[in-house]
Amino acid sequence: MAKTRLYTPGPTPVPEQVMLAMAKPMEHHRTKDYRDMLARTTEGLQYVLQTKNDVLTFTSSGTGAMEGAIVCCASEGKKALVARGGKFGERWGQVCQAYGIPYIAIDVEWGKAVEPAIIEEQLKNNPDIGIVIVVHSETSTATASDIEAIGAIVAKTDALFLVDAISSAGAMPIKTDEWKIDVVVTGSQKALMLPPGLAFASVSEKAWKVIESNNPKAYYFDYRAYRKSLKKNDAPYTPALTLVRGLDVALSMIKEKGIENVWAQCAKLARASRAAFEAMGLKIYSSSPADAVTAVWLPEGIDEAELRKILRNEYGVHLAGGQAELKGKIIRMTHMGYVDEVDTMGALAAIEAVLLRLGHKFEIGAGLAAAQKILVESR
Amino acid sequence: MAKTRLYTPGPTPVPEQVMLAMAKPMEHHRTKDYRDMLARTTEGLQYVLQTKNDVLTFTSSGTGAMEGAIVCCASEGKKALVARGGKFGERWGQVCQAYGIPYIAIDVEWGKAVEPAIIEEQLKNNPDIGIVIVVHSETSTATASDIEAIGAIVAKTDALFLVDAISSAGAMPIKTDEWKIDVVVTGSQKALMLPPGLAFASVSEKAWKVIESNNPKAYYFDYRAYRKSLKKNDAPYTPALTLVRGLDVALSMIKEKGIENVWAQCAKLARASRAAFEAMGLKIYSSSPADAVTAVWLPEGIDEAELRKILRNEYGVHLAGGQAELKGKIIRMTHMGYVDEVDTMGALAAIEAVLLRLGHKFEIGAGLAAAQKILVESR
Repeated sequence: MAKTRLYTPGPTPVPEQVMLAMAKPMEHHRTKDYRDMLARTTEGLQYVLQTKNDVLTFTSSGTGAMEGAIVCCASEGKKALVARGGKFGERWGQVCQAYGIPYIAIDVEWGKAVEPAIIEEQLKNNPDIGIVIVVHSETSTATASDIEAIGAIVAKTDALFLVDAISSAGAMPIKTDEWKIDVVVTGSQKALMLPPGLAFASVSEKAWKVIESNNPKAYYFDYRAYRKSLKKNDAPYTPALTLVRGLDVALSMIKEKGIENVWAQCAKLARASRAAFEAMGLKIYSSSPADAVTAVWLPEGIDEAELRKILRNEYGVHLAGGQAELKGKIIRMTHMGYVDEVDTMGALAAIEAVLLRLGHKFEIGAGLAAAQKILVESR
Repeated sequence: MAKTRLYTPGPTPVPEQVMLAMAKPMEHHRTKDYRDMLARTTEGLQYVLQTKNDVLTFTSSGTGAMEGAIVCCASEGKKALVARGGKFGERWGQVCQAYGIPYIAIDVEWGKAVEPAIIEEQLKNNPDIGIVIVVHSETSTATASDIEAIGAIVAKTDALFLVDAISSAGAMPIKTDEWKIDVVVTGSQKALMLPPGLAFASVSEKAWKVIESNNPKAYYFDYRAYRKSLKKNDAPYTPALTLVRGLDVALSMIKEKGIENVWAQCAKLARASRAAFEAMGLKIYSSSPADAVTAVWLPEGIDEAELRKILRNEYGVHLAGGQAELKGKIIRMTHMGYVDEVDTMGALAAIEAVLLRLGHKFEIGAGLAAAQKILVESR
C-alpha cells in the first residue's frame, strides 16, 4: 500500500490538475486550438525564463534540445568552451565530440561551482571560442554555478552563452535577458511539474544571427525549423500534444503563484533540508549547493541501496542515488516542482527514521527540528 | 498551488488505484461481472469485519444503513437501549424517536467510554430491551468504547447488539463473530479508503431471526430485500456501481497488507500523533481515545477557524473542527485509511508550524520529535 512519492530530481510529482488535463480526449494539433495553446505556453515559458526571446518547444528530453543548441550555434572554425563539473557538463562535451566540434574543457572538481574568472581567462586566451556551455544546476552533484556573473563575461565577447537550465529553470532564479544568456535549455519533468517528453530553448537575437548563418548537421533539432513554425504558433513536427496541454495548466499554476514565490519556496525547502541533513550528522556534498536538489554524503556504514529500498518500499519515498563516480556514496532529494513543506517534512521524517534504524546515531527528531526551525522562521 | 490532503475523519484520502478503477467506462449492474464483483467485495468485507455473517451493501451513507438496522431489528413492544456519548450516539436516539421506537438513553459524558457495567445493569432492570446500540468509535469525540466487553454482556440476553462501526471498521480491531455483535454498520468514506456513497452491515443469525419475524416500516432499508438479493450476489435496487468497483480494489489492498497490519498502522499513527500533540502542550480530548481519529483541545487564545484555514490554504492540510458543543474548541485528525507515516509527520509539521505562528509557545520541533520517537520505536 506504499504510495509513490517522487523526491527524485526529475521526474518530479505532477499535479492532478495537469494529469487530468492530459487525460482529456485526444485532439489534433493542426488546429486553431493547438496554436492558441502553444501561443499561451510560449508566453508562459518566457515568463518562467524571464525573457522576451523566442522560446522553442521540442518533443524530446532536455538532452535533445541541448544537442540542437550546440549543433546549431557551433560555427565552422570556432571552438566550444565546456565547463565540466558533473555528469551533465561531461555530456555536453560528448555532444561536441560526436559532431566533431573542437572544444576546450574546463574540468571543475565535482561539487564545486564553475569559476567565472576561468571562463574569462579562457575567452581571453582563445578568441576562436564560439560557444560557452555551462550547467546552471548540475543535477548529478546538486551544485549551482553563477550564471549571472558568467553571462556578463561572455556578453562582452562574440561568443554565445549556452546554459543547461534543465534542473534550474522554474526552481532557481534565472533571468535570461538580464543575465544575457543566449540559449537557455530546460525540460518538462523538473520544476515545470510535467512528465518527461518536452524540452524548451530560449534563443537570443545574437544567437539567431549565428544560427541563421550556419548550416548545422541537424534536422529534427534544427532550431531554424522551430523558429519558422513558431511565427505561426505552430510545431514543425508532430508535437506531444497531451504534454503541451499539461504544460498549459502547469504554467498557469506557476503564473498564479508568481515565479518569485516559486523560487522562494524552492530555496526555503532546500535550506530546511540541508539544515535537517546536517543536524542528522550528514555532510552536504556540494560547496555551492543548488536549491533545486540537495545531495548529501552518506555516513560511514550506511548502505545507499538498502536505505533507498526501505524508503521506497516502506514509506513510498523515492530518492535518487549518486551517478557515475558518486554511485553508492550520496543520496539526492528534490525541492523543485510540486513538492511543498508537508511533503518535505514527511520525507525528512522517513529519512530520519530509516537512518536511525540502519544504525546511524543522532538524537531522534534533531533533523526535523532543524528543518522546522528554518520553515517557521522564513514564514 | 496548495494540494488537497484530507486528514478529516471521513472522507479520507482515496488511493489512485481506486480512483482509476472508478474512472473506467460505465458498465451495467445486471451482469455476471457485477455479481462476481459483489461476491468478492462481500467476502472482503467479511474479512475486514472478521465475520461469517451476511454483509449487506447499501447505496447510502452510514446513517442510512444504521437507520435500517434499528428499524428492522426493533420489535413491537420492545425497547432500544442507546448509549449517547457524542453526536452519533445522539443520532441513533433520534432515529428511534422518528420511528416511535421507545428507548432508554445512557448519557455518557462526552469524551468518555461507555461503561459496560451500565449496559449490564440496564439490561437486567429492563428485560424488554430488544436492541442495544453502541458507537464503537464516536467520531465527534474521537472516543472508543469496549465493544468486546459489551458484546459479551448483550450476548447473554435475547437483545440484539447493534454497533456503529462507521469510523472504526478497518481502522481499529473489530471481531464481529468473536465479540458476538449482531449488526455492525460501517461506511465507505472512512477506513475503507473510498469516496462516500456506500454503507455496509453485517447481520448475525440471531438478528435475522428477529428481522424476519418483524414487519419494519422500511422499504429501501428493509434488510430482508438485501438478504434475498445477496443470495444471488445481487443488489435489490440500482447499486452505485463505480463505488463497488472502487471497493473491490480497496479491499484487495487491505487483504494484501493484512487486516492486523492495517489496525497496527492506524494505532501507531494515533499513538505518534497523540504524543506529538502532548509535546506541543495540547491536551487530548478523550480519556479513552480512539485510534481512528484524534481530537485535541485547542490551547487558550488559538482560534480554531484561523488555524484550520491557514492549514488548508497554505499547507493543503484539511483537519476537522469540533461538532455541536465542541465547535471551535477542538481539532480532529484522522489516522485511518490511506494515510501513512509520511503523511502524518507532514501534517504534524504543518500543525506545529501554524501553532507557533499563532503564538502558542513550545520548543520548535518538540511535537515532531515525540512522534518520531514512537514511530522509530514501534518499527
